[in-house]
Amino acid sequence: MQMAEVNHRWLLRTRPVGMPKDSDFELVEEPVPAPTEGEILVRVEMLSCDPTQRGWLGRDTYLPAVNIGEVVRSLGGGRVVRSRHPGFSEGDLVSGLVGWQDYAVIKPVGVFGVTKLPPGMPLEKALGTLGPNGLTAYFGLLDIGRPQPGETVVVSSAAGATGSLVGQIAKLKGCRAIGIAGGAEKCRWLTEVAGSDAAIDYKADRVEQKLADACPKGIDIYFDNVGGEILDAALARLAFHGRVVLCGAIADYNATEPPPGPRNYLALLNQRGRMEGFNVLDYYARAQEAVTELADWIAQGKLKDRVDVQRGLENAPAALRRLFLGQNQGKQLLRVAN
Amino acid sequence: MQMAEVNHRWLLRTRPVGMPKDSDFELVEEPVPAPTEGEILVRVEMLSCDPTQRGWLGRDTYLPAVNIGEVVRSLGGGRVVRSRHPGFSEGDLVSGLVGWQDYAVIKPVGVFGVTKLPPGMPLEKALGTLGPNGLTAYFGLLDIGRPQPGETVVVSSAAGATGSLVGQIAKLKGCRAIGIAGGAEKCRWLTEVAGSDAAIDYKADRVEQKLADACPKGIDIYFDNVGGEILDAALARLAFHGRVVLCGAIADYNATEPPPGPRNYLALLNQRGRMEGFNVLDYYARAQEAVTELADWIAQGKLKDRVDVQRGLENAPAALRRLFLGQNQGKQLLRVAN
Repeated sequence: MQMAEVNHRWLLRTRPVGMPKDSDFELVEEPVPAPTEGEILVRVEMLSCDPTQRGWLGRDTYLPAVNIGEVVRSLGGGRVVRSRHPGFSEGDLVSGLVGWQDYAVIKPVGVFGVTKLPPGMPLEKALGTLGPNGLTAYFGLLDIGRPQPGETVVVSSAAGATGSLVGQIAKLKGCRAIGIAGGAEKCRWLTEVAGSDAAIDYKADRVEQKLADACPKGIDIYFDNVGGEILDAALARLAFHGRVVLCGAIADYNATEPPPGPRNYLALLNQRGRMEGFNVLDYYARAQEAVTELADWIAQGKLKDRVDVQRGLENAPAALRRLFLGQNQGKQLLRVAN
Repeated sequence: MQMAEVNHRWLLRTRPVGMPKDSDFELVEEPVPAPTEGEILVRVEMLSCDPTQRGWLGRDTYLPAVNIGEVVRSLGGGRVVRSRHPGFSEGDLVSGLVGWQDYAVIKPVGVFGVTKLPPGMPLEKALGTLGPNGLTAYFGLLDIGRPQPGETVVVSSAAGATGSLVGQIAKLKGCRAIGIAGGAEKCRWLTEVAGSDAAIDYKADRVEQKLADACPKGIDIYFDNVGGEILDAALARLAFHGRVVLCGAIADYNATEPPPGPRNYLALLNQRGRMEGFNVLDYYARAQEAVTELADWIAQGKLKDRVDVQRGLENAPAALRRLFLGQNQGKQLLRVAN
């Protein structure tokens, strides 16, 4: 195992206002740290770029905010290079909150720990379709949305890491799937590769009108990754007993003022609808259920995933921004080392 | 049975803008109509004033809007004075959508029909605690809110016809109950008569601060009758796995522009919360469950109700406005005849 002389780390310098800038972070060099008893040292190989990271940089939400001067929190994966924990050996592949750095010293328990991965599992899968995005799509759609065959499922950020799985799982469960994404290329991928019944380009189309066309009986499940005007457009078309699965609100994450709320929320009253939030952290105890079914679908060629791999730890802020600029084509990853 | 020579009827003349004015309606005199086969003629004795009537005057919601020139839709009760329906006899007491008029010809089936009441049941009870308000409070709190003993339940319009029952049922089910109402007198009634653990006067208090004081562990269930800023204040204090039961939005009913949505809706995401709408119409098949338990509580002195009876069909618009001016002390009724 090749060891770098130093540990490059991105620290949070100031809380971003609006879109995160390079100058909100500072890239420092420190000695490679040594694990103490009960800890492991991980060589980070791949980082996951996730919209929720923007929230962690701002304020306490479902996790405490990253402190100024701390390493930027990020999911990622890599190999154990030193272990002082009986459950881990050198060479083990792990994933978890490793942070924007070459090396992470980790106490492998709880939310801030890491999980051992099966030998040979590609980190692209472990951080995406068989990891947080897969679990988010699976439990969010099935547990919170509770789709019935024949129902109409609409998903936003439909070509993204989570959304692209939601639409495909909806199809596998016998639903109609409509994806909302930005740009013709993503929409083409949705209908031609991912099997969506229709795709709506929110940059070019009038979303509310297109939803009316694509969902003549209304929307039974709207899986929301974006919030804002698209949430309102979906609420306006909610079917009787429709469900809104709140997964995220990327439209709000870089807002500098509190964005307006969904003015069509009273659709929930008229349609006896339900809007419910969830967090994949609550489902880790049931992860195996999802991973088994997702892996089967992949093996049978029924579930397509798409990864967008950038390279170099020095590009971490830019890779994160790709999410908010809509530049990522599927799961955004950043390879840090081989 | 005394028969008036004419039937006084309030017709909708124009759709109200903002608060309904007398001039939005027209009081006309018509001959007392005759029922045809399958219909009954009801002498209206008591009208129920309900916030949802404001919605019916505006546009199609869960029921089609009242048409211009039609009698104003209203719940009420009275006696059958002529029957051409085999299930009804002269003298039967009924309740349902009788409208703002002395006499109603009704086909007693479906949502727009009437239901026979037990002989001797006071119309004050049939139109309130053992009628729509009781069912709304009972099923909204228990079926949608699903309270657990020890949880904190907050209700708005807490001294109103539905809200006053929600708080008391919450207490009967072992919860803490906090009521939000307008004015010291209503708040006094909540804590001294209805047994609420705390009352918040939204006209005098800073609601968000008072909610923080009264709900140190957050709000497990918020039963919303008002929408607007109070909904946002409650969302800001939502507990983990908290539920918002959407029953109404009186703050919005007279708004002339679409009011803003709840900007704190992302509390549902961070707290894994659920916001769900319902309508009592969906629960009529299960009405007996609720009526049995509610009547028991009343008989045992455990459930206090409060009615505010105005008099005279000519005062119907004014009686309806009392709801939106917060003048009603409990269930607003209008006695039309003895």
